Amino acid sequence: MTDPVVIVGGDAAGLSAASKLSREDPDREVIVFERGRWVSYAHCGEPYFVKGEVDELDDLLSLSPAEIDERGIDLRREHEVVAIDTDARTVSVAGPEDSFEQPYGDLVVATGATARTDPIAGSELTGAFTIHGLDSAAAVRAMLTPPDEFDVDDLGGGDSLDHELVARYGAMAPPETAAIVGGGYVGVEMAEALDAWDVDVHLFQRSALPVPMFGEAVGETVADHLRERGVDLHLGAEVDRVLGEDGRVTGVRCEDGSTLDAELAVVGVGVTPNVEIVENTPVELGEGGAIAVDEYGETAVEDVYAAGDCAEDHHVVTGETAWVPLGLTANRAGRAIGRTLAGTPTETGGIAGTAVVKAFEQECGRTGIIDADEARDAGFDPVSRTITAGSRSGYYPGNEETTVTLVADRASGRLIGGSIVGKDRAAVRIDTVATALEGGLTVDEVERLDLAYAPPFSPVWDPVLVAAKVLNGALEE
Amino acid sequence: MTDPVVIVGGDAAGLSAASKLSREDPDREVIVFERGRWVSYAHCGEPYFVKGEVDELDDLLSLSPAEIDERGIDLRREHEVVAIDTDARTVSVAGPEDSFEQPYGDLVVATGATARTDPIAGSELTGAFTIHGLDSAAAVRAMLTPPDEFDVDDLGGGDSLDHELVARYGAMAPPETAAIVGGGYVGVEMAEALDAWDVDVHLFQRSALPVPMFGEAVGETVADHLRERGVDLHLGAEVDRVLGEDGRVTGVRCEDGSTLDAELAVVGVGVTPNVEIVENTPVELGEGGAIAVDEYGETAVEDVYAAGDCAEDHHVVTGETAWVPLGLTANRAGRAIGRTLAGTPTETGGIAGTAVVKAFEQECGRTGIIDADEARDAGFDPVSRTITAGSRSGYYPGNEETTVTLVADRASGRLIGGSIVGKDRAAVRIDTVATALEGGLTVDEVERLDLAYAPPFSPVWDPVLVAAKVLNGALEE
Repeated sequence: MTDPVVIVGGDAAGLSAASKLSREDPDREVIVFERGRWVSYAHCGEPYFVKGEVDELDDLLSLSPAEIDERGIDLRREHEVVAIDTDARTVSVAGPEDSFEQPYGDLVVATGATARTDPIAGSELTGAFTIHGLDSAAAVRAMLTPPDEFDVDDLGGGDSLDHELVARYGAMAPPETAAIVGGGYVGVEMAEALDAWDVDVHLFQRSALPVPMFGEAVGETVADHLRERGVDLHLGAEVDRVLGEDGRVTGVRCEDGSTLDAELAVVGVGVTPNVEIVENTPVELGEGGAIAVDEYGETAVEDVYAAGDCAEDHHVVTGETAWVPLGLTANRAGRAIGRTLAGTPTETGGIAGTAVVKAFEQECGRTGIIDADEARDAGFDPVSRTITAGSRSGYYPGNEETTVTLVADRASGRLIGGSIVGKDRAAVRIDTVATALEGGLTVDEVERLDLAYAPPFSPVWDPVLVAAKVLNGALEE
Repeated sequence: MTDPVVIVGGDAAGLSAASKLSREDPDREVIVFERGRWVSYAHCGEPYFVKGEVDELDDLLSLSPAEIDERGIDLRREHEVVAIDTDARTVSVAGPEDSFEQPYGDLVVATGATARTDPIAGSELTGAFTIHGLDSAAAVRAMLTPPDEFDVDDLGGGDSLDHELVARYGAMAPPETAAIVGGGYVGVEMAEALDAWDVDVHLFQRSALPVPMFGEAVGETVADHLRERGVDLHLGAEVDRVLGEDGRVTGVRCEDGSTLDAELAVVGVGVTPNVEIVENTPVELGEGGAIAVDEYGETAVEDVYAAGDCAEDHHVVTGETAWVPLGLTANRAGRAIGRTLAGTPTETGGIAGTAVVKAFEQECGRTGIIDADEARDAGFDPVSRTITAGSRSGYYPGNEETTVTLVADRASGRLIGGSIVGKDRAAVRIDTVATALEGGLTVDEVERLDLAYAPPFSPVWDPVLVAAKVLNGALEE
């Protein structure tokens, strides 16, 4: 009998692989080891749970352990895979009661990523959070809720929730001031969430603009908008320490010595792939530090796959590998690997680095290569133009300024990336650009796309078309 | 000296050509003959002007005659071109004071289309409207406004407006019941507009569902929604006559003899291209009855171009010519011809038949080939699947059901069309499908598009991706 498929990690990639495999090949044994108690949850929903727009933690679970069981998947929570022996084809598992060796026929490493705290001393203080995981999100919401209104049962989460942790935060007085360290996804989303609790929000960003991965035009719009919405924005300000007293957060300190008093700190300075368990194996890492895989998600070791935030992908624009840990591609790669293991070789699909984020009312999107240095490193001669156009016909109510940046390679005229920001349907418009990247379209072709027009939804020339017209003009110069 | 460029028609296509040409080659003489008084106006905004969401007619004008003059364009309103002599290279013009022959170096026919009324007797009655032109839209709004609140100066439009017509309608008692004949774009948009005036709205559609060009799934959703919003929907009901007494509308009659009393009738049963002036010339028509052109918009006669609602285009899916009279492609073709005439040969660009329409809160989109018979006529073996998915993460407020249909060719796996309907950002999502058509993507490639995901904007799997997954599964059967 074939040894089971062993999957390390019970979140997006791991459970997508397990679900697809169990559906397509119900007879194949599948074991998923998850080191924590939470499985199959929506990371991206955490800020909205903190804000209170999402009521309960259970709302953020895609599949309950019971549903996973119904699919015939043997899920073992609180089981940590601590080592892999690719010669013996076994993994060493530390469970709550014992440790054991588990043989595998195929192995899927889907260990995810961990929020970085290493650059910021003091991240372990009570009142400092990374918002990476549901316990962390629940603890923040507990702290924000006045103690006399707090009831742990309001949070949901059943036996997965760390009740002791949450009860401790629920008993604390709500913070008056919060310091957010890092102006990326987590930073801007948490600014909105904390603002909803009437906390005085300070956001510290090391670079000159927030959401740097979205480029300058988006960053400027978001910076203006955060200020409009009352966020105290500290740009070019590098926090090096969360300050504390008696184990509790009391503020943050910047490299220049300036400090801010705060009772709550959110540290969102990026994530790092969880690759420790492959360190002493022949499984190879890519340049980005995540696990290198081929187009089927297979690592350098036969029958060992990797997917999700711990693995690299292939970039549709550069053709090179890239590490872009995001939700869709984790789900998709897991699903493809599940299908491959069920007997139908399925490519995981390229990534374009498409991402969207909501900063209060501003919808931000980006895809492809928008940074000039990154473009040059990939062998392109980047030409970029930014325009602002309406989201609807000028005369139609609700028309909002929409700023689009498109980037092309001068020699080939090919579109290589773009960004967008605006309050009216801006985010989903980035999909037009992402699809054009996948199709390998030139800017000239993008300019002539037959996109939708009706006064309530778009002007005659969609903002993406306006940007393509202007960029095409620049390419002809 | 070269004879001038003569442009017949002063709306989207004609003035786009004139503007582009005058910008790129300011020395070239350009004369635009427009038979009416209105120029450069937004047809698509008329229902929203009737509804009152758009205040004044002037809001619907892209360019005023004065602005056109500033661009160095010699615009002659109320000048009708009644004949073309392609041998002599002249047009015969009937102006308000005299008739004359105008020599041309290049000729652009941009005569647009006219709303059809021929299938419906009685369309000339007072109280019957086609909503094709600003006078018609102004007259409806005048009739809807109670006489004691009516002031012609509120409508805007300056000396272009037919004051006598509008004043006459402004003096009438507002209608209690309106019959809309035709459930296409004009029909559903006018249902919303008339409903806003508390008129009892009846909509008659010959086929089994409204907006038939959007396919069955959209039609069903729109039918349900129109009824929810209080519109009396008469499906499979063919109106053959607007009934009248003393020259005034009194109701409509269906082929089966049934009648409805109504004081206002809107006839929206399609448009027909204005091609009379080329009838006795060597300029050829295409199969759709509009003027046949090559990829630069040039007709069968050298130096004679055609663009906009009177001309055909090239369909990116079929590679064949097609007549799809819509706003963007009219503007784009006009602009390309203007550029070609200025010395830079520029293709007008293909069309995908992308269209969007708002039916109260439902946003509808379509692109490519979605009708099975039409697909087979174009040589495809169509396979189609329809899915319903969320517009946002299920736990995020504002998540709305979004129904997507995708159609592919079985043999090649190529995506050939799609439709979408939903209340939350559905319309702009059709651009993803339109762009995939332009890129010639297969359903397999669409399934692996790296589209945007964040809880407020999209679920992990965008509805378009869900549809691609299901259709891809069907293709593999």
